[in-house]
Amino acid sequence: MSNPPPGEIEFRAQNQLSELFAALDSGTGRDVRRMLSTLSPQNIAQLLESSPPRIRNVLWTLLDPEIEGDVLPELSYEVKSQILATMDTEEMVAAMEGLDADDVADILQQLPERVMGEVLSSMSEADRLRVERVLAFDEETAGGLMDTDTISVRPNLTLDVVLRYLRRHEQLPPSTDNLFVVNRKDQYIGLLPLSRLLTTDPSVTVREVMNTDVEPIPADFPDDEVARLFEKYDWITAPVVDENNRLLGRITIDDVVDVIREDADHSLMSLAGLDEEEDTFAPVRRTAPRRAVWLGINLLTALLASWVINLFQGTIDKVVALAVLMPIVASMGGVAGSQTLTVVIRGMALGQIGRSNLSWLLTRELGSAVLNAMLWSVAMAVIAAYWFDDTIIAVIIMAAMVINLVTAAIAGAILPVALRAVNIDPALAGGVALTTVTDVVGFMSFLGLATWFYA
Amino acid sequence: MSNPPPGEIEFRAQNQLSELFAALDSGTGRDVRRMLSTLSPQNIAQLLESSPPRIRNVLWTLLDPEIEGDVLPELSYEVKSQILATMDTEEMVAAMEGLDADDVADILQQLPERVMGEVLSSMSEADRLRVERVLAFDEETAGGLMDTDTISVRPNLTLDVVLRYLRRHEQLPPSTDNLFVVNRKDQYIGLLPLSRLLTTDPSVTVREVMNTDVEPIPADFPDDEVARLFEKYDWITAPVVDENNRLLGRITIDDVVDVIREDADHSLMSLAGLDEEEDTFAPVRRTAPRRAVWLGINLLTALLASWVINLFQGTIDKVVALAVLMPIVASMGGVAGSQTLTVVIRGMALGQIGRSNLSWLLTRELGSAVLNAMLWSVAMAVIAAYWFDDTIIAVIIMAAMVINLVTAAIAGAILPVALRAVNIDPALAGGVALTTVTDVVGFMSFLGLATWFYA
Repeated sequence: MSNPPPGEIEFRAQNQLSELFAALDSGTGRDVRRMLSTLSPQNIAQLLESSPPRIRNVLWTLLDPEIEGDVLPELSYEVKSQILATMDTEEMVAAMEGLDADDVADILQQLPERVMGEVLSSMSEADRLRVERVLAFDEETAGGLMDTDTISVRPNLTLDVVLRYLRRHEQLPPSTDNLFVVNRKDQYIGLLPLSRLLTTDPSVTVREVMNTDVEPIPADFPDDEVARLFEKYDWITAPVVDENNRLLGRITIDDVVDVIREDADHSLMSLAGLDEEEDTFAPVRRTAPRRAVWLGINLLTALLASWVINLFQGTIDKVVALAVLMPIVASMGGVAGSQTLTVVIRGMALGQIGRSNLSWLLTRELGSAVLNAMLWSVAMAVIAAYWFDDTIIAVIIMAAMVINLVTAAIAGAILPVALRAVNIDPALAGGVALTTVTDVVGFMSFLGLATWFYA
Repeated sequence: MSNPPPGEIEFRAQNQLSELFAALDSGTGRDVRRMLSTLSPQNIAQLLESSPPRIRNVLWTLLDPEIEGDVLPELSYEVKSQILATMDTEEMVAAMEGLDADDVADILQQLPERVMGEVLSSMSEADRLRVERVLAFDEETAGGLMDTDTISVRPNLTLDVVLRYLRRHEQLPPSTDNLFVVNRKDQYIGLLPLSRLLTTDPSVTVREVMNTDVEPIPADFPDDEVARLFEKYDWITAPVVDENNRLLGRITIDDVVDVIREDADHSLMSLAGLDEEEDTFAPVRRTAPRRAVWLGINLLTALLASWVINLFQGTIDKVVALAVLMPIVASMGGVAGSQTLTVVIRGMALGQIGRSNLSWLLTRELGSAVLNAMLWSVAMAVIAAYWFDDTIIAVIIMAAMVINLVTAAIAGAILPVALRAVNIDPALAGGVALTTVTDVVGFMSFLGLATWFYA
């Protein structure tokens, strides 16, 4: 457990920021330094993330170098990158001293190959080995999430011996709630919860009280599934093993919380074509090119919709009211479809949706779509009939809305599942694919029916 | 720590579901019962959440009543409601026996007033008092999140006395990582981490080794801020106090993780007009009315856009190509605006955006919008010029796109902040408000310019 500064409960990043900005404006670095020195690394990280790049850099240079290492792991990926780019190797090595192996590995993985090699070779032998064990695994696996600071004991010891062994430590690794029980070959056998150590007769052996129900996590297990296990079973730490069941390290809940936060943000950001790691205060030269790609893709889909409309130029020329009403059909389909899409994408992220229940879900969405289509298409028909004093256009928009809302429900339910089946991220591609469908079907059905009716 | 069943790492809800559905289809409740008995309460909860309502009810009736109480707290709000509605008071009282006070309070708060009274009066005196202490607080505060099963010690004891006191317990409350140090009036003074208890000389007093840096959380502190503190400081448990600093209970990380998950889901679901508590498998009669409201609101905004188009009927009648191209202007504005909106809503949810940095953010968004507007409006102008062999329409769509993309950036950045200032949830209302603006401005600028050019 790290210690917040006193006054933490009262801390408001926005107030601190205003004060900091004022102090920076008045040009007195000393005031800013003094303010920063009263804050915890976590609050400093939050202020850095809430600052535009120029101010961020000034704040970083005013920061006590002693505390830099504690602030770095608290920063999000992009902000960390940006700040690392301003540091030299020596500074980095100094900052990383005393950090957990997984935090160091995270930082190193963001550096260019050459710099990473330099930093590694400047580290002490022991630290380097510790870090290299974590670096061996993909960032998005249990191995990439783990720390190596485990305390392990043998099953044949008595609790009394374990207690005396622990008392030889200055302190235990943070968040330690279990000791790991391993055999002679360092293979994982079970857990010894600290609470059991404290409540059981010390003359008993570890083997008699250890918990063997919890399976260790394989090092190559994906991080989002690790998070799901922690959430399900309220774990605080869990052991990580290699393919021979040898204990490699442990995962702690604080790192899992970060995974949960990122996973949950992923759907939200992806639906708008953004990355969940995106820095809120990224400069224009970073945001503009990324957004450009997304806008370009959307321009293509919009052009497709225009091409459909173009097929019916003649009809629109005859009945101009069609041009007035056609966006309504497309828009209602888009809104209805995005509701279905969001429910399905969230359900998939929670692991709730698969082949066995997809057809039920599709039926439910269809049922819901039919009811709402009846309600709103009739309402719209009445409005159109009065507005343009034309019952044909009323019938046409009613029929087109029913067609498009039903299509939207089917597309919203099927698209994400189909995209995932071909390994495309449904959160990223689903929204664009969906509006393409609802735009094309919306314009096609409305203008097609009109061409037929008014022919 | 609760115990997963062996094979947990291999557990795949979708496979289990297929098997369960097959067993239910073949009509042998015994097979289903046997399968359920091998699963942990958490996995049973996941299967219930992944099942359509009818199957959900069958599964629930086949469940061993002994385990019902452990499954209930693992369910999401809506699913829990649905299942509670099938239970009678006696069953509920039996199920709630042995649950944490905060879990019982959560369940009770979902029941109708009358049923809640009945259940409370059927509980044992001690249990009822424990639960009523939690019920006194709003669900979305620290008080509503807390458990009351704390272990507290006095500062003048030696660690040796504390160790002997703990050994008198059968077991410690789950996730216990600290004991709480209180004075004679039960007022919070500090924390005694179990790890320190294990590594320090037992003859020392609690006062000498306790941690007084962590401030206790006031019972009325909002739950999302509690979550932010836990995330920041990697807490596992934290003390909750009343206004006189008296220790009321403790919050554990597992309940905080649920808050984090819900908060993160809130933006995603709200942007589609959905509730983050929404049951993926809610029946049509629940989903249809909720969606109807959202579709109705969107129909109104679509009608507003149509009304704008209607103002320019004459121009469209003259140049029908305008009807073909006008959705492109509106659509690009909508996409660009929703990117800005999403970034700002996420930044607000993370507490990064306030008055001090909003103007920087707006400038960045404007800069990004201008660059992308130049790129894509020119591209679109070239396409339009060739497509319709008309340079006037090319100039018009270029200008309209620039206007609408810049408007989108301003609206995307300002709307969420403005909505929050008048206490409207930006995630819920932001998307609708934004597309209204980009549709109206898109059609108005494109058709308005056309009217002027072709006049």
